[in-house]
Amino acid sequence: MRDREASTTTIRWTGHGWQEMVDAVAVEEPLELQVDGRPLSVVMRTPGHDVELALGLLWAEKILTAREQLSGVRLSADADDQSGFGEPLLLESNRVDVCFATAPGRRPERSFLSNSACGVCGATSLADLAQDFPAIESTLLLSPAALLRMGEGLHRGQATFQRTGGLHAAALFDRSGRMLTVREDIGRHNAVDKVVGRALLDGRLPCSDSILVVSGRGGYEIVQKAVAAGIPVVAAVGAPSSLAVAVAERFRLTLAGFLRDGRFNVYSSAERLQPG
Amino acid sequence: MRDREASTTTIRWTGHGWQEMVDAVAVEEPLELQVDGRPLSVVMRTPGHDVELALGLLWAEKILTAREQLSGVRLSADADDQSGFGEPLLLESNRVDVCFATAPGRRPERSFLSNSACGVCGATSLADLAQDFPAIESTLLLSPAALLRMGEGLHRGQATFQRTGGLHAAALFDRSGRMLTVREDIGRHNAVDKVVGRALLDGRLPCSDSILVVSGRGGYEIVQKAVAAGIPVVAAVGAPSSLAVAVAERFRLTLAGFLRDGRFNVYSSAERLQPG
Repeated sequence: MRDREASTTTIRWTGHGWQEMVDAVAVEEPLELQVDGRPLSVVMRTPGHDVELALGLLWAEKILTAREQLSGVRLSADADDQSGFGEPLLLESNRVDVCFATAPGRRPERSFLSNSACGVCGATSLADLAQDFPAIESTLLLSPAALLRMGEGLHRGQATFQRTGGLHAAALFDRSGRMLTVREDIGRHNAVDKVVGRALLDGRLPCSDSILVVSGRGGYEIVQKAVAAGIPVVAAVGAPSSLAVAVAERFRLTLAGFLRDGRFNVYSSAERLQPG
Repeated sequence: MRDREASTTTIRWTGHGWQEMVDAVAVEEPLELQVDGRPLSVVMRTPGHDVELALGLLWAEKILTAREQLSGVRLSADADDQSGFGEPLLLESNRVDVCFATAPGRRPERSFLSNSACGVCGATSLADLAQDFPAIESTLLLSPAALLRMGEGLHRGQATFQRTGGLHAAALFDRSGRMLTVREDIGRHNAVDKVVGRALLDGRLPCSDSILVVSGRGGYEIVQKAVAAGIPVVAAVGAPSSLAVAVAERFRLTLAGFLRDGRFNVYSSAERLQPG
């Protein structure tokens, strides 16, 4: 696995003059996603946990609907010139090929694409956005204090962000507050895909007893992916969007925002949060 | 034009108890982009300046390469159920149809899609990522103090962000420091597309004498769009990514990051920044 951060030489203007320094930047590289050997999409992501990313993304798109459909996953990481950038730069030709033993849940007939913040990948008309997921079914109850502790746990888990300022993180917790998975990526939604991909590999989907906490904002794509994974509670450190709130309400998902400084706001299904 | 923010009822946990309040959230809605009446893509965006958004996106994708290619742009904004969400929610069926008088520069044969942070839309293989743009040609010189003032100007221009915490902004400045355009959107890259679309409509492309300042991070997609528009200097309030630095170096674009608190870092082509 390659690093999530790279060193680069930079010069800093401090108001008085220039200062040369070595800076750590978050790594962003394209990953080609294939299904049964055919190119499906290019994902701009931070390297690492690429199999989880591929599986989580296919799950959110309803192409993969059960772990048993998989026959295997092939990884390749060979440097070549396919990128078109000529010089090797930081690019390498990375591919993940997900092989199906049985027919995919939905045929990946449209070319869908994900990059550093996608979630509606491949939709070419508004009708394509409709994903036929059931509403969240969960008996999960959580205290506000427990949710706040999860926010603090995510923050402690963001190792690379501390150094680069450039990575998002997503973490899945169980109802007792234990962190099950934490993933960092330059794309918020990639970090969520990796968390869901891990849950798939561990046989924990749907995650009807889990809480997803994400750094940054809570937009449509985050809520859509949580709905696909059956996650009943999503909390974002940043602001939600109008569509995220609307989708959360529709699928009866508890959506919290601005989870920081000992506070948060709840935008839907607040009944799961009960002071205990 | 609809609003960039919506009111929503939320309850806030303050550590002691719940407090009901009305909160402003950034509006995120899908826009269907058509070319000559055929659906091309769905973009998750904040409503407003949709024509600019469509034109800027087609420019970055090299589908539109000259203003003279356009015969017109049709807008529709009728509420229907095409979204698949059933209830009207905050969704409306919005479409922009860009009509060409002459053949597009590149045939939009692949289904490309953009949402709240896309920039490599539609690539289905790594080879697709190669865009054949020339390196930046510009004689622009700028003082570090002038760049810092532009960062302050962007901050003052972010009206909706102040209220919702959920919008990104992009602004274009001329070399004298005058702000030419500022646009806010839930997607960083959408804000850049709107700025570039405006420049196209105003006959100012390529913007070889302009400076682009963006809130948030400076990833691949921002630099790629700036290269497509011929913009020689890009400054981000947040961190750059490794690929953004690599692409900036390749196209001789000046990339600055962490533009805030009276400082910034320069990652490529620093020769354009000269204390004066």
